[in-house]
Amino acid sequence: MPQRIGKDTIFLPSRPRVLGHAALGGKKEAQGPLSACFDQTFDDTRLGMKTWEQAESKLQTEAIHLALDKAALAPGDVQAIFAGDLLNQCISSTFGLRELNIPFIGQYGACSTMAQSASMAALFVDSGVCETAAAVTSSHFCTAERQFRLPLEYGGQRTPTAQWTATAAGALIFGKSGGEVCAEHVTFGRITDFGIKDAANMGAAMAPAAASTLTAFFSDTQTKPEDYDAIFTGDLGKVGSALLLQLLEKNGLDLSKRHRDCGLLLYDTEKQDVHAGGSGCGCAASVLCGHILQEMEAGRLQNILLAATGALMSTTSSQQSESIPGISHLIHLRIRT
Amino acid sequence: MPQRIGKDTIFLPSRPRVLGHAALGGKKEAQGPLSACFDQTFDDTRLGMKTWEQAESKLQTEAIHLALDKAALAPGDVQAIFAGDLLNQCISSTFGLRELNIPFIGQYGACSTMAQSASMAALFVDSGVCETAAAVTSSHFCTAERQFRLPLEYGGQRTPTAQWTATAAGALIFGKSGGEVCAEHVTFGRITDFGIKDAANMGAAMAPAAASTLTAFFSDTQTKPEDYDAIFTGDLGKVGSALLLQLLEKNGLDLSKRHRDCGLLLYDTEKQDVHAGGSGCGCAASVLCGHILQEMEAGRLQNILLAATGALMSTTSSQQSESIPGISHLIHLRIRT
Repeated sequence: MPQRIGKDTIFLPSRPRVLGHAALGGKKEAQGPLSACFDQTFDDTRLGMKTWEQAESKLQTEAIHLALDKAALAPGDVQAIFAGDLLNQCISSTFGLRELNIPFIGQYGACSTMAQSASMAALFVDSGVCETAAAVTSSHFCTAERQFRLPLEYGGQRTPTAQWTATAAGALIFGKSGGEVCAEHVTFGRITDFGIKDAANMGAAMAPAAASTLTAFFSDTQTKPEDYDAIFTGDLGKVGSALLLQLLEKNGLDLSKRHRDCGLLLYDTEKQDVHAGGSGCGCAASVLCGHILQEMEAGRLQNILLAATGALMSTTSSQQSESIPGISHLIHLRIRT
Repeated sequence: MPQRIGKDTIFLPSRPRVLGHAALGGKKEAQGPLSACFDQTFDDTRLGMKTWEQAESKLQTEAIHLALDKAALAPGDVQAIFAGDLLNQCISSTFGLRELNIPFIGQYGACSTMAQSASMAALFVDSGVCETAAAVTSSHFCTAERQFRLPLEYGGQRTPTAQWTATAAGALIFGKSGGEVCAEHVTFGRITDFGIKDAANMGAAMAPAAASTLTAFFSDTQTKPEDYDAIFTGDLGKVGSALLLQLLEKNGLDLSKRHRDCGLLLYDTEKQDVHAGGSGCGCAASVLCGHILQEMEAGRLQNILLAATGALMSTTSSQQSESIPGISHLIHLRIRT
């Protein structure tokens, strides 16, 4: 039965286990440094579908089926699925998961959606509500560009602070037993807003949220950054990562030796023309469900934090000159001791 | 500690209590049959703000503050807030709640968002994760029209099956003790899709989801419609309500004596030019947090179900000729025995 410790952190005494996980990526992701970590990659941006939106939905469908297969489970064995994405009204998730016939609880945390959904799934297992619960999310460069920015055909210039929306998905399944990796704590974040208005600099908008959630977690658990093998942020990119380290230093926390950012891991930022790094719900999701969990299962990482971050804006809010609020949700994973 | 009963239903043994609730509405809602049930109504569609989107955010801010006041609580007393809305990337919630500094867990269930969020808040209290948890959602006729349909200035014609998006919000606070109304069960729904493609007939798209969730609930709890004083659906309107009764009849369930629909209660459908009835996240939210909870506290209703429904489409999915998947989440409320 879950227990609140400190102010914002929830301890999961039964330590729900990761029973299966899968990461999918597009062509650019397949050319990046994490190429070998994907279960499947696709050269065709449409994945053989009629539209990019259908392709993004298919990323979720395939990711969840692969994760279920690896856990030797059928959709009917799962009592709840938590999912969401960046598209208006989260259609990648609703269309991608409608055939599964699993109780569906839609989540929205922008690019933090995977940490939020995984935390929910772990919590539902720990509280006894589910034997097995799933989390999945996705993003797609082409659906995001045309929805949030400009038609791809326009070939717009990108600023150096801009990030590249990953074409990727990640899915994982939590259950009561089996599997070496378990969830020990989750921390749901508070909305922060430092007044950043530049939608081409979301790293800066999201860094304060990551700082807030990480500070709360270390304080609640009375631990320090050195207690973890690695502390992953979702997709702060170059600009947001530097800012996060500065903000945490002010709180007396030195993250520099442990920090890694999913947005900087997914691509070679020197060679792949992604400017400040990767972003999108699929970025943290695929790095978690590919690279991070593989490193843990291989014994190279024992004890990690993932604090994914989201920019809670829309094109309407930006056009109306609003600032960009951020949020960060955290999940603490470790090898079962 | 919550317990799964049957296939999809979760029993909440500690029966979390409704500590405070508030309903807000616009001008049309103030002219409807539930006029006296609102805590506050607004003649100005902008609520004194610069944009309709800011006005909708303000509906959420005001609703949650009123609910907190009635519960004699401050924002700092609440450990989690569940919220979402119909606007792209749920900006009504994120902008409306950013000043509260409460851990924020964004939910998306289209017009079922209030039942989903309230269920989550009740569940978090029952599992011991929160002492106090909140749920809030909203919709606004003007923000919805321009996002989903046409600019208001165009004055487009509406078909008879179309529903009217409510300008309204509802908020409620669950806690461990205090308050007469408690949550006893929640049921998270499965996505259903009967292939309806007409975005001006969402009642028909959502009715199968309500039928699915209600059928699961009655089967899981081994109860029948007559065991409840009233069974409210979210916003099926005229078309969807008739269809729901037909679908349930096929499952051997006669809902006709107990069924009421929030979309038909909120307006006088003969006189108020709303065609098939009300809709929007704020419809079920304001009817629940105004009318329903007031009727319960006045002793006129003891034992009710609310099965809110959502149409999980976007303008993009409709323009791409996709069908409209539906979902329905259910919460069972009763007077504490």
